[in-house]
Amino acid sequence: MSQRPFNFSAGPAALPEEVLQQAAAEMLDWQGSGMSVMEMSHRGREFISIYEAAEADLRELLQVPANFRILFMQGGGLAENAIVPLNLSRGGKVDVVVSGAWSKKSAQEARRYADVQIAADGAASQYKALPTDWKLRKDAAYVHVCTNETIDGVEFHELPDLKALGSDAPLVIDCSSHQLSRSIDWSNVGLAFGGAQKNIGPAGLTLVYVREDLLGHALPACPTAFDYQTVADAQSMYNTPPTYSIYIAGLVFQWLKKFSYAGKTGVAAIEQRNVDKARLLYEALDASQLFENRVAAQCRSRMNIPFYLRNESLNDAFLAGARERGLLQLKGHKSVGGMRASIYNAMPLEGVQALVAYLNDFEARHG
Amino acid sequence: MSQRPFNFSAGPAALPEEVLQQAAAEMLDWQGSGMSVMEMSHRGREFISIYEAAEADLRELLQVPANFRILFMQGGGLAENAIVPLNLSRGGKVDVVVSGAWSKKSAQEARRYADVQIAADGAASQYKALPTDWKLRKDAAYVHVCTNETIDGVEFHELPDLKALGSDAPLVIDCSSHQLSRSIDWSNVGLAFGGAQKNIGPAGLTLVYVREDLLGHALPACPTAFDYQTVADAQSMYNTPPTYSIYIAGLVFQWLKKFSYAGKTGVAAIEQRNVDKARLLYEALDASQLFENRVAAQCRSRMNIPFYLRNESLNDAFLAGARERGLLQLKGHKSVGGMRASIYNAMPLEGVQALVAYLNDFEARHG
Repeated sequence: MSQRPFNFSAGPAALPEEVLQQAAAEMLDWQGSGMSVMEMSHRGREFISIYEAAEADLRELLQVPANFRILFMQGGGLAENAIVPLNLSRGGKVDVVVSGAWSKKSAQEARRYADVQIAADGAASQYKALPTDWKLRKDAAYVHVCTNETIDGVEFHELPDLKALGSDAPLVIDCSSHQLSRSIDWSNVGLAFGGAQKNIGPAGLTLVYVREDLLGHALPACPTAFDYQTVADAQSMYNTPPTYSIYIAGLVFQWLKKFSYAGKTGVAAIEQRNVDKARLLYEALDASQLFENRVAAQCRSRMNIPFYLRNESLNDAFLAGARERGLLQLKGHKSVGGMRASIYNAMPLEGVQALVAYLNDFEARHG
Repeated sequence: MSQRPFNFSAGPAALPEEVLQQAAAEMLDWQGSGMSVMEMSHRGREFISIYEAAEADLRELLQVPANFRILFMQGGGLAENAIVPLNLSRGGKVDVVVSGAWSKKSAQEARRYADVQIAADGAASQYKALPTDWKLRKDAAYVHVCTNETIDGVEFHELPDLKALGSDAPLVIDCSSHQLSRSIDWSNVGLAFGGAQKNIGPAGLTLVYVREDLLGHALPACPTAFDYQTVADAQSMYNTPPTYSIYIAGLVFQWLKKFSYAGKTGVAAIEQRNVDKARLLYEALDASQLFENRVAAQCRSRMNIPFYLRNESLNDAFLAGARERGLLQLKGHKSVGGMRASIYNAMPLEGVQALVAYLNDFEARHG
């Protein structure tokens, strides 16, 4: 088989080729069971073994502490924008840090259930830098931060230390678009959530990591299927979970456990490769006269790199030429225009090198 | 490849072998796109074409009227137990007909959002017959009926005519476990919902068919991602939909459109085969001295056939022998014990014939 194209989709996004190959090979008969994973009862021993391995591997990869439960849910980040306040707000106060389009949506949705305050807002920088001067309320039920903004391309490279900012509230992080791309310092986190469709697997699976003391406080309006306590008590099987997506996620976890790079393995290895990939691309953009990334250097996302052609009349030619070279899905989000390269875990270094070579070549011809 | 085992799982359940073969063949490269369907942006032209074909094929198969919207959602039937009253109850009255375990759960969940009355209850028959003597309130926002009870094995072979019962309320049907196994008389329906994991595709996809005049009345507590109006306005792409599950569902729809049996095609053909499969199995059970189905003849499910060994000490031997013959997942639901054969659309006639042959053989040896 010839080399596959490089797929820069912001999500659903590229998956490791080995994972897809194994999924194809096992499609009609998972390990001699005579069944596709899609056809298995979620309560049968075959699927339970898949589920338990996936949960254990994810816990090991991200070093999730024993006092956190990992929930395999449905609905994606947008549904969690409601499910989190339904479970954690107790109808009280919620502080939200607005660092881009996703946290803005989170704040808006939380208003249905809680007294929401925007604790800080990056609007002054047009979300090209992280918001400063956080105003946190002592009695907030939690503080919400989106730690990687997929559209704006800004990332928190360190989690905020709420205690140092004078707050005892739990930190909730929406880590949808950089989940599993780097380690997480759980000492600063009460709850983390993220859709799977960036670094983990198919759309339709949502991961929630919740500290046990935050369970059991859902509002009466919370649907039972989205009550974290119910989901945790049922090992994510109160309702039928998205079984095939969990299986694919499990294959990705196995791939990542074996992944090695620069003398490291697992998440440390992928994090190092993500650092190297992002540096390569940002350096090329910064050296260019035609292309530009507009995000402040200290908070540039390693995952989602929006960039613009200074001559926007070349946009269509750029995208057409990219497609010819097997560089797919580079068009930017419709709300901000331009281009975006999403370079998640499954994107090899060679993919970024090919993109940089194309940037240089395109500029030489059109710059 | 040798013949696959016959899989009687109640859900997630067997899929047509042709569908699995095509999914395996296209796993790394969908129709020359260079991407797996799992890797496609839900907003790209490739996936949009998959989505639109799936929606159109489903609409054609079930002859869904033009004034109904088809929504591709997440959360399964249990989540819909909350999402339906959040969207349709307007905080008012909801009448629920309890015909088994699933409608009982629906009534319980709806109480979070509405004034729920049990309009009829099959408890007197231990849910072995459909409830009679319906008491409907004139001013109910809707009437909820589960048209096939997966655990109890009872099915409505005709939809109730609420008008004839003196009600003008819209009928809501939970058709999770017989969806697409038969035609639907939409003239009696306001909304239908069902998880995909029986007759349609992988778990994690939920189909909702809603009459347009019922849109736009969600309660303030309804999460935006589950507001039918929002989902309909966004062509099911307000949040990232479960793209791969929609793709598999689309392959199942294509399979069903080409399916022929007894001189018929499509849903008419599958319905006829389902009638024949169920009759074959019920006749064998009724003729047996060892096995019995306890459901009243006129409301026996064509999809889920619970049965018991009169000598329950033989249960383990029965299941072990079944597995040896390639007859999988016949154990009954834990709440009712015994056995259950779920014979959804993808179960061929040969699978039911093999089960009947085994029943007869087992009885000859142990009866």
